Amino acid sequence: MFKAIVYVTLRESVLDPQGNAVHESLHSLGYDEVGEVRIGKYMELEINSNDQKNAEERVKDMCEKLLANTVIEDYRFDLNKY
Amino acid sequence: MFKAIVYVTLRESVLDPQGNAVHESLHSLGYDEVGEVRIGKYMELEINSNDQKNAEERVKDMCEKLLANTVIEDYRFDLNKY
Repeated sequence: MFKAIVYVTLRESVLDPQGNAVHESLHSLGYDEVGEVRIGKYMELEINSNDQKNAEERVKDMCEKLLANTVIEDYRFDLNKY
Repeated sequence: MFKAIVYVTLRESVLDPQGNAVHESLHSLGYDEVGEVRIGKYMELEINSNDQKNAEERVKDMCEKLLANTVIEDYRFDLNKY
């Protein structure tokens, strides 16, 4: 049994309107020290498998096919046995 | 200058319909080894400050006031000097 922690973030070159909105809100609350804000997704997936190498390949596939839009997003993941 | 990495996740007791939808989609794509899926937010904030202790307190404040809904969400963050 593994837990996959997947991080999906917008590519550097892609504008992040949600991040800009959070940046503006933080400034209007007085947090003037805040610079760029980028927002991504964080996912935890239980993986019922005992084969780490296979599980890694399968999670990579899931990212490519469903979890990330690789045209505009990057992803990375950790796989922890538990 | 710091980079704050903030993770916001739904509390254990709160249902995650978005996670359930991803779970169903992964199963319909043939990834039957996927168990529970929980989805959260991942944020990167540039913090223009040189005082780590103060920056930590301020980021905690931002989480409590804006970045997380503490009724249903938990948060944690790392602060990295760069």
